Parts: sequence; structure tokens; C-alpha cells
Amino acid sequence: MKSTVSFRPLFHVLGILLVVLAGTMMIPATVEAYMTGTVPLEFLFSAAITGVLGVLFILAMRDNKSFSLDLKQAFLLTALSWVILPVFAALPLMGLGLETDAGLSYTDAVFETVSGLTTTGSTVITGLDQLLPGLLLWRSLLNWVGGIGIIVMAIILLPFLRIGGMQLFKTESSDQSEKIIPKSSDLVKKIVSVYLVLTSACALAYWLAGMTVFDAINHAMATLATGGYSTHDASFGYFGIPAQWVGIVFMMMGALPFIAFIKFSNGHRRAIVDDPQVRTFVRFMVLVIVASAVMLAVDKNINFFTALTYSAFNIVSIVTTTGFASTDYTLWGTGAVAGFFLLTMAGGCAGSTSGAIKTYRFQVLWTIMRAQLLKLNSPNRVIVLKYHGTKMPDELPVSVLAFLAAFFASIAIVTLLLAMMGLDFVTALSAAATAITNVGPGFGDIIGPSGNFASLPDAAKWLLSFTMLLGRLEIFTLFMLFDPHFWRT
Amino acid sequence: MKSTVSFRPLFHVLGILLVVLAGTMMIPATVEAYMTGTVPLEFLFSAAITGVLGVLFILAMRDNKSFSLDLKQAFLLTALSWVILPVFAALPLMGLGLETDAGLSYTDAVFETVSGLTTTGSTVITGLDQLLPGLLLWRSLLNWVGGIGIIVMAIILLPFLRIGGMQLFKTESSDQSEKIIPKSSDLVKKIVSVYLVLTSACALAYWLAGMTVFDAINHAMATLATGGYSTHDASFGYFGIPAQWVGIVFMMMGALPFIAFIKFSNGHRRAIVDDPQVRTFVRFMVLVIVASAVMLAVDKNINFFTALTYSAFNIVSIVTTTGFASTDYTLWGTGAVAGFFLLTMAGGCAGSTSGAIKTYRFQVLWTIMRAQLLKLNSPNRVIVLKYHGTKMPDELPVSVLAFLAAFFASIAIVTLLLAMMGLDFVTALSAAATAITNVGPGFGDIIGPSGNFASLPDAAKWLLSFTMLLGRLEIFTLFMLFDPHFWRT
Repeated sequence: MKSTVSFRPLFHVLGILLVVLAGTMMIPATVEAYMTGTVPLEFLFSAAITGVLGVLFILAMRDNKSFSLDLKQAFLLTALSWVILPVFAALPLMGLGLETDAGLSYTDAVFETVSGLTTTGSTVITGLDQLLPGLLLWRSLLNWVGGIGIIVMAIILLPFLRIGGMQLFKTESSDQSEKIIPKSSDLVKKIVSVYLVLTSACALAYWLAGMTVFDAINHAMATLATGGYSTHDASFGYFGIPAQWVGIVFMMMGALPFIAFIKFSNGHRRAIVDDPQVRTFVRFMVLVIVASAVMLAVDKNINFFTALTYSAFNIVSIVTTTGFASTDYTLWGTGAVAGFFLLTMAGGCAGSTSGAIKTYRFQVLWTIMRAQLLKLNSPNRVIVLKYHGTKMPDELPVSVLAFLAAFFASIAIVTLLLAMMGLDFVTALSAAATAITNVGPGFGDIIGPSGNFASLPDAAKWLLSFTMLLGRLEIFTLFMLFDPHFWRT
Repeated sequence: MKSTVSFRPLFHVLGILLVVLAGTMMIPATVEAYMTGTVPLEFLFSAAITGVLGVLFILAMRDNKSFSLDLKQAFLLTALSWVILPVFAALPLMGLGLETDAGLSYTDAVFETVSGLTTTGSTVITGLDQLLPGLLLWRSLLNWVGGIGIIVMAIILLPFLRIGGMQLFKTESSDQSEKIIPKSSDLVKKIVSVYLVLTSACALAYWLAGMTVFDAINHAMATLATGGYSTHDASFGYFGIPAQWVGIVFMMMGALPFIAFIKFSNGHRRAIVDDPQVRTFVRFMVLVIVASAVMLAVDKNINFFTALTYSAFNIVSIVTTTGFASTDYTLWGTGAVAGFFLLTMAGGCAGSTSGAIKTYRFQVLWTIMRAQLLKLNSPNRVIVLKYHGTKMPDELPVSVLAFLAAFFASIAIVTLLLAMMGLDFVTALSAAATAITNVGPGFGDIIGPSGNFASLPDAAKWLLSFTMLLGRLEIFTLFMLFDPHFWRT
């Protein structure tokens, strides 16, 4: 089996990413030193290890040819970055250099880091309110950096790789068939700018809604990333109604297609409202939230506005795949449990930080189902499948449907493996679903919205870490690497 | 909205079916009179009502034109028969003419009848051991008649209607584009002969394995139909190891494609082993059963043969969508619960009495997924999708995938509705799954293999009756009727 994939440029890029990661560690280090007056040893040690290794990679894999990546290298780089960066990003959480019991085990640290970078937000840490501020900030930064990684991947890489129907979202820069990196740096800059502006606006709004500056910045990063890491064990149960509404607005922002924001900032005033995904997504959300609020108000005999706030916050949190909770919605009744479980699968718009199935796949699915019924009625009729008025690429229906099949098959297999590790059915099923959709909380007494992943066996934590990556990479990006054909020809 | 579908010939056929149904009621009536020495009033009343209505339909809808059905009428007749026949077949279970508390409510009677005819086998009756023999036989007959209905529908009608990928199984008679009924009567006769021979062989084997003649005949009918109605509350827990192995063999038979049996009886000695579905299905079963038996033997420290018998019987029962239980396998551990839940989705071969996803759809899915990965690697490569060496029809992948999407969407919606009626999540989810797959038992304390559907609210029973029909009709046959396009043009 002869490999023709050149690894040199990949490890060169990975080296650069490791150096950037080491540099990023200095942000929480500085904040922690400033806030606590102690030396942030855990960050200094981790940054040293990560940085030195990064520099070694860069030097060892130096290449004189002009830099470019082909299709296979793009696949590999994406997968490798998502697998290797958490290995190092986990180091500070182990509390290197601090007292012996201050840090997590390596298993827990990797789970927490993968959960952060994939913007899942499941946590194994209890006692967040007592955690070192640097570590809290690091968790939020993992969410935030992971979020930008996803958006860049979704806008530039996935359409080009034709993953899971993302070929619908080809932009000018992803249309190039060979060299993708040079042409797209301009687009990356725009994405980062939009992301920074929205995060700043969110932090300001949180602060105005009563959060401390530290809480406001941390939650703003976790909000825009639809990540869901909080600085309090009670999550948004710690804050008041105004903070929840700020969260609702900016979680929704985080789940909208960023390309629409960029077009908007370029002067297309209707870019957001005219986006094919946005209308469907927003209508769906309004419908579900209002229905839930009415049922909750009637059922629990509470004020409609209170019911609306709780419904909106928790539903937006789950559907955008953020995973903050402002109350234990599993206590709303059996219908709520089933409803939130199903909403876990939904997801926001493609090209955002949110995970799961996503709006456009439901739209494509709807179109396919309509066409199937028409075809059953009139077998000889020629039906043109359209998305937003344009003919779909021929291979799109199968691409989307294959994604869905892989998605449900993955949930099934992970559920079975978790159950064989001794998890009860509801915990196993909801852990599998919440990991692959990058939502965060599951169901049941253990990993429900008031629970925590700490007590799961180590094997389950590694399996769920893999599952979070699988979901984040739209499944096929990782599946590819297990396909022998990838390594031949 | 002008309807151009002519209902006359449909109601004419329905009238004939009702008369046949009334006639069939005389079988348990005779048996009950012979076994108990009483007048089987419940059957006589029901047969009178059903028969008179049938005759009226026939007379009122008499048509002088030569009899034939077009595409829409074939759809409608299929759907109408499955909806209307249970309305009458339920009458005997209400105990008309018996003491007031001897019968079921109409809701329960319809649930039990739909469960029987769809070969699901979920029951609302406790105290089967004390039930009148005529009613026990009626339940088994519902399974058996429903089974033959499914096979005929799957072999003759569904390939013609192109439902859910069944176009793979076009036979000579389903290839005709317009008139299907006259050409297929010969095939129907062969199907019925094979079914009768297998059922008789099964009854004989059960009797040799120690069952009474009555139990042997009843269980043989429920076995070949992969229905799962038993004459004892303990189901196969009532019988010994030999009866279980007879059950294993004939449940497997019931889940094999009947067209292969017909070819075999026509002299094609390798028709069964060469069938594309049979090999995959049998290999899968052996793999799962042996793995389960090893784990069970080790885990519970029991004799391997005992573990093999219990594994084989209960796994075959679930995968063939029969639903007999010889023990409460949900007590085998968390892994078993998740495993059996997933196996509920699997199903046997198309063209048999079994429900659920079915072997050929997994085969098509596997081919599609392989092609997707190849395509991601080499976007310009032309890939020909093949099934059993022959190029798949172009529309097949979308047809199969659309079925799967509709299948999971149906489970999701039914789960949500059941949960909103107050069922806990596991009961709601497993009830939805076991109904649409026509398996029978669910999970949890209420509807698990040792439980019963009696205590569910009436609304849930009606919803589940609808869901069983939906699954039995491969979803799209019913969806069609809700599509306004069907009723236009």
C-alpha cells in the first residue's frame, strides 16, 4: 500500500498551529496572573511544551516549494488538526506545576478540551465557581477558537470537499479545483472580523445585563461559538432574565450562516433575511418556542413571559447546539424530554458554529420527499429538484441522505458501545446524540442539564471524545481516513 | 379539487374481502363450538354484520366493465383494505353477545386487530391462558392472514408502485405497467401454497416438540406470519427448549423472501442460497447470535447451549419482527437493552412477512456509502451502483434513502406525540419503534417483553394502531393518500 500523500506540508502547517496554540495560552496566563497575583505555572509549562514542539515541526518540515494543498492534503490537514491540537490544548487543564490534585486526569482533560474545541460544551468539571480564572478563560477560549475553526472549515473547506451536501454552499474561493489556501485568506480575515465584532457586542450586552466583565467576556465567547461552557455550575441559572435574552439573541446569531453576515457588512442589506436557510430556521424556532411557552404556561400555571423566557432560552440553546441551561427542562414533563431529545438533532444553519443535521439538510430532505411522492403518483414525470430557486447538483440528494444515514448509524453504534460499558439506555442514547451533534447536555440523572459527564467510565469519555470530533467533522471527513482507497492511488 | 379516481371497483373488491372475512370468522366459531360446547355468539354476530355489509357493497358497486385497476386504484385499494378490514375484524374481540365484561373495548379490540393483521403482535390482553379458544384462534388467524396479505403486497404490488426501493424486486407480473390483477393470480396461488406448506410443517414440528395440537396450530400461524401472538401470557417461556428451536427455524423461514421458496419449489435447487438477501441476512444473524451467546454465557456464567438457545430465540424473534419472547432479555444488562432496541430496526428480507428496514435496504445503503467515500476521494470518477451484480435503477438510492428518512421521522414524531400523552421517554420511543417496525414488544416496565400495552391511554392506542399500519404499508403507501397531488389530475 504505497502512500502518495505528502505529509511534509501538513506537519509544517501543524507546527504553525501549535505555535499559535502556545501563544494563545499566554492570554489566560496573563489574565490569571493579573487576577490572582500568582504565577500561572500550568499555562507556562503547557505553552513551553506546545511551542517547542511546534517550532521543531516547522523547522523539520520546512519546504521550499510554494505552499499549496491538494484535495487529499486538505482532508488530512483538517482531520489531523482536530485530532492533534486537543492533545496539547488539554495540558493546562491537567494543572501542570500546581498542587497535585488541582488538575484533571489526562482522560478528563482531553474530553474537556475536545468538548470545548468542537463547541460541544459537555463538561467533566464540578466546582466551576471555584476554578482558577485562567482555566475558566481557557475553556471559553477553546469554545471560541473551535467556533472560528468550524466556520472557516464550513465556508471554505467542506463545500470544496463535497462533504454531506455542503457543495450547495460553494463560494468563489471554494470553486477552485486545486489550490485553495492562497485565495481564501481574504475570506478568513472577513470571517474573523465578523466573529470578533459579534463577540464584542455580545460581551457588552451581557455586561449591560448585569454580568461581571469576566463573566461577560467568557460567556460571549461560549455564546457566539454555540459552545456552552459557563463559568458557573448553575450555567445561566446563575443569571437573571435580561442576561437570558441577550443569550437568546446571540446564540441565534451564532447559528446563522456567517457568509450572510459578511455579505451584509459588504453592503447587501437584505443578505441575512434573503438567505435561504435563515427564514426557515427562524420560522421554525418561533413556532417551537411559542408552542412550548404556551404549553409550559398552561401546564405549570406560570406567567406567560416567564414561560416564554425559559422556553426560548433552553430551546435556542439546544437547537443552536450551544448547550447552556437556565433550568432543568427535563422536569417540564415527558413531552419536554422527548421534544428536547428530538431538538438535539436539529441544529442551526450550515456555515455557522452550530452542529447536528442543520437547516439546509431538512430543506433538501423536504424537497426530496415531495419529489418522491410526486414520482409515485406520476412515474414518468421529470422532476427538477431545486434549492432556493436553483437546480440542485445531481449528486446532492444522495450526498445529504448518505450523511443522514451515517449520522444515525453513528448514534446507533455509539449508543450500543456505551450501553455495553454499563451506561443505562437513556444515558447511552442521549450521550451519543449530544456528542455527535455537539450540543452538550444529555438526558437522565447522570448527564442531564443539571448533571455532569465526570462519573462516566474512562472508556466512555474517549469514545465520546471521538464522537464529538466525528460530528464536528461532518462524519465523512473522518470516515475518509479509514477508507483504504484514500491511501492508494 | 376534482377527483378522477373511480371508487366503484374499489368498494366492489372491499365487499368481496368483507365476505371472505365473515367466512373466515366461521373457522374459530366452529373450533370454539367444538372445544367448549357453547354457541360462539361473538363470531356469529360479527360474521353477520361483516357479511351483510360485504354483500351490500358488492351489489351496490357492481360494475359491468371488465375488472382491472390502475395505479391510483391499486394504491387506494391497498390502503383502504388495511384500514377498513380491521374495523370489522375487531368485532369478535369485543365479545358481542357474551357476558358484558368478556370482551375488549372497541379501542382495545381495534388495537389488537391491527396489531394482529400487521403481524406486529403487541397485545392489550392479559389472561391469554383463560381466553376462549375461538378468540385465541382468531388472533392467530389475524397474524396468519395479515402475513399472506403482506407477502402478496410485497411481491406483486410494491415493486409495481415503486415504494421504498421495492422496484428492485420487479417480477414478470409486476413489470406490466397497467393491468396487474389478472396476470398475478397464478403467483398468488403459489405464494399461498408455499405459505400453507410451511405453516403445516411448522405446526407438525411444534406438536412433535411437545405442544398440544391447538397450541401447535396457533403458534405455527403466528410464527410463519412473524406475528408473535401466543396463546399464553408467558409466550414461549411456557414451552421447552425443543419448541424454541422449532420457532427459531420457522421464524427465519418467515423472514426469507418467498419468491425464493417459489423458485425452489419450481425446481431451482439453489434459489434460496443464491438469493442476494438470504446470504447477508443469515450471516448477520449467525454473527449477532453467537456474539450474544458468548457474552451471555460469560456474563451470567451459564451453559453455552442454554445461552445460545435464549440468544437465538429472542434475537431471531426481534429481527424477524415476530415478537415472541422466551425470557425477559432486558434483564441481560444495559448492553442487551440497547442491542435489542437497535435490532428492532433491522428486519428480515423483503418479500417476506417481516417488517422494519429489511436486509436489501442495508445492502443498498452499504453500496451508497462506499460510493460516497470513493466519490469524495476521486470526484471525477464515474461510479456504477450495483445490486447483486446488476446496475441499480437510477432512482433507487434516493428511493431507499427517502424511505429511511421517512422511517426515522415517523419514529421521531410518534415518540413526541406519545410522550406528550404522558408516556415516559423509553416507553414512548420503544413503542413508536416497535409499532412502525411491526415487531411487537417494547422496552421499559410497561411495554417490555414481560409487559403489555393494556395500560396505555386510548389516544396512544389509536396512534400506535395508525403507526403499525404506516410501517406495514412501507410508509409511502399511506403518505400518498395525504398528498393533494394524488387526488388531482
